[in-house]
Amino acid sequence: MKVAILGYGTVGSAVVKALIENEKIIKARCGQNIIPVIALARSVKKNSLIPVTQNADEILNRKDIDVFVELMGGVKEPFAIIKQLLKKKKNVVTANKAMLAYHRYELEKLASNLAFGYEASVAGAIPIIKVLKEGLSANHILNIKGILNGTSNYILTHMSQKGSDFKEVLKRAQELGYAEADPSFDIEGFDAAHKLLILASIAYGIRAVPEDILIEGISGISNEDVYFANEFGFTIKLLGVAKAQDSKVELRVHPTMLSKNEMIAKVDGVMNAVSIRGDMLGESLYYGAGAGGLATASAVISDLLDIARGQLKTPMFGFKSDMKYSLLPIEDIYTKYYLRLKVEDKIGVLSKITQMMSENSISIDSFLQKPKADETYSTLFFTTHHTFEKSIKNLIHTLKKQKFIKTSPFMMRIE
Amino acid sequence: MKVAILGYGTVGSAVVKALIENEKIIKARCGQNIIPVIALARSVKKNSLIPVTQNADEILNRKDIDVFVELMGGVKEPFAIIKQLLKKKKNVVTANKAMLAYHRYELEKLASNLAFGYEASVAGAIPIIKVLKEGLSANHILNIKGILNGTSNYILTHMSQKGSDFKEVLKRAQELGYAEADPSFDIEGFDAAHKLLILASIAYGIRAVPEDILIEGISGISNEDVYFANEFGFTIKLLGVAKAQDSKVELRVHPTMLSKNEMIAKVDGVMNAVSIRGDMLGESLYYGAGAGGLATASAVISDLLDIARGQLKTPMFGFKSDMKYSLLPIEDIYTKYYLRLKVEDKIGVLSKITQMMSENSISIDSFLQKPKADETYSTLFFTTHHTFEKSIKNLIHTLKKQKFIKTSPFMMRIE
Repeated sequence: MKVAILGYGTVGSAVVKALIENEKIIKARCGQNIIPVIALARSVKKNSLIPVTQNADEILNRKDIDVFVELMGGVKEPFAIIKQLLKKKKNVVTANKAMLAYHRYELEKLASNLAFGYEASVAGAIPIIKVLKEGLSANHILNIKGILNGTSNYILTHMSQKGSDFKEVLKRAQELGYAEADPSFDIEGFDAAHKLLILASIAYGIRAVPEDILIEGISGISNEDVYFANEFGFTIKLLGVAKAQDSKVELRVHPTMLSKNEMIAKVDGVMNAVSIRGDMLGESLYYGAGAGGLATASAVISDLLDIARGQLKTPMFGFKSDMKYSLLPIEDIYTKYYLRLKVEDKIGVLSKITQMMSENSISIDSFLQKPKADETYSTLFFTTHHTFEKSIKNLIHTLKKQKFIKTSPFMMRIE
Repeated sequence: MKVAILGYGTVGSAVVKALIENEKIIKARCGQNIIPVIALARSVKKNSLIPVTQNADEILNRKDIDVFVELMGGVKEPFAIIKQLLKKKKNVVTANKAMLAYHRYELEKLASNLAFGYEASVAGAIPIIKVLKEGLSANHILNIKGILNGTSNYILTHMSQKGSDFKEVLKRAQELGYAEADPSFDIEGFDAAHKLLILASIAYGIRAVPEDILIEGISGISNEDVYFANEFGFTIKLLGVAKAQDSKVELRVHPTMLSKNEMIAKVDGVMNAVSIRGDMLGESLYYGAGAGGLATASAVISDLLDIARGQLKTPMFGFKSDMKYSLLPIEDIYTKYYLRLKVEDKIGVLSKITQMMSENSISIDSFLQKPKADETYSTLFFTTHHTFEKSIKNLIHTLKKQKFIKTSPFMMRIE
């Protein structure tokens, strides 16, 4: 089986290296050699293990290639290339979550009767696409909770374990290469959202794009939130959450307060994990490296092996006919909330806040007032019982207008 | 697709119930109905959802059945039936780990070009067979560590968390239905060994049977071991361990001292988990329910869906040609050990023991002498650096002959 590598960066090089180094076991497992024959690169590569070109057409027009592996990144260009390849009836493997978040259903249509692998697009080395699409196929998926972004998890872990400040840890993550120079894609939840949308297509057949769902990042989390979480038995994680209730599915990405006892709360550092609850299987969890050249290559090559074994079947998301799931509007999300307020330390303030809460049908589960940070302001922490997203947004809107509120209220959801 | 259920107990009934209740989503996912048409039962079933017979031949001779699902338990009888079915070119799905531990390679031969599913045979609802055979297929598997027996994990968790005595917790587990009246199959490691052997076939193509490998259970673990583990940052788990070094593979099942910080050490109660380290993917972990009707049915039905989708391909263990792995002899296992000795509290005893250790080339990593339990005897705890299994066995053999040893030395391996 001849393979072309489109995009010859960290992952592309790792795929080529592993196909060559693990050649024997790969052949033993699929009965044939999987040979990387050419790579498309942005610049000339010295000492490349295989021939490299900068001319896309030179590769795309080759008739002897069985599978094209897209590892270019970006959305527009790879989408155009993959469309072209599928129209020529070529098999494709991609790790491109951003492109799939926007264009996966157009690709699904074109990929009919072809092999289209995207295991590497979610949670790196964890074979979560295969698990969800095939391993748990007997189940109605009740919910998915994923730590899908290693950078954010690294930052939150260090904030929690060492009491460090967000900016300080981010800087350190950048120095260690765990965070990009511009980290917003990772820390503002977009990367996790792309992955969540792909999982939601397999679990529910939901056709949403990032703009349809709730996405919040971790940059607003302070040491005080970490303090509260530790005191009350919580851990803070950036989660991608998918939940089904009847025919409605809620999809959301946000920092979340989780009980320390949950398995997914125990996932630290740059590691990824996905917890999946099914109506038959109960709770399950899948844990591993979410990024890195070789780890991602492990997923890419498993797709190639599946193709060589004749096992990678369409439809792409495992649904031969549509399910009747639709997206729950954001304002109808119904969950528990955490609120941090900085208020003037004056008589009557707490009473005003609790009155506003009850006007929005929000009932308090726990309350903590921290010893004063300075002379005139106090920090108040609340957790609520279940309430609607629209109620909490309303409350925050009202609170913001109050004179006794020092800084903008900070809210987090609780699972 | 018509299915016959052979064995209509907890799992068989759950498979039938789920095929009926989740009919719609199953059809959406594989494009056809999967219909349980008849079940073989030991006794007459009232209010059965499908026709039931006690006559095996009545089912086995039916020409309209596409897949036979074996859930009878035992070894000899199901093996004879499955052989007969495969010879007739019938597809088979089984959850029978004991049978596979002994006869899997005979079945593999007969199953050539047929579908043979056994996802439910290891770790219940966790799709670990699929993960290892397909999801991680690009990797050399460096090691596998599995909590493969829920009963043992329940007992160890409660001993650790509540300081309870082994017998006491076992009794409670029996009352709760987590342990059988005769629990030896679970607590002596045989159940875990069967599952480990199946995983070893997929990872390494190793053809061992239970008698070939090291199997030890948890019944010798005392409160004192739990005390030591807690003091020194360990957790005790019954692990199935497979490890490759060059072309040698060691397979062993035994209670293990693990660092509390490892992900698998955090798996509590009746839950199962398998940690797999690959040369590309690094560490990964798969966690879920290891037993129970619906959880096991989830795995059985995923095999049926794979068959319906034309995705369940032989060879059974994913190897089209043999790999050159062979079993490491037990005495050559090289790891760290924990020793608990009850000795007379006399001058010179410790010196004698440490001399015996050095004569066996065993070097001490840590040592603890617990305050005396009674007037004349002390408990000594040792952990060693890496040494060979034959050395530690030799040491124990020598120790047993000493007059100053009160009860037989207790040994555990450390990971």
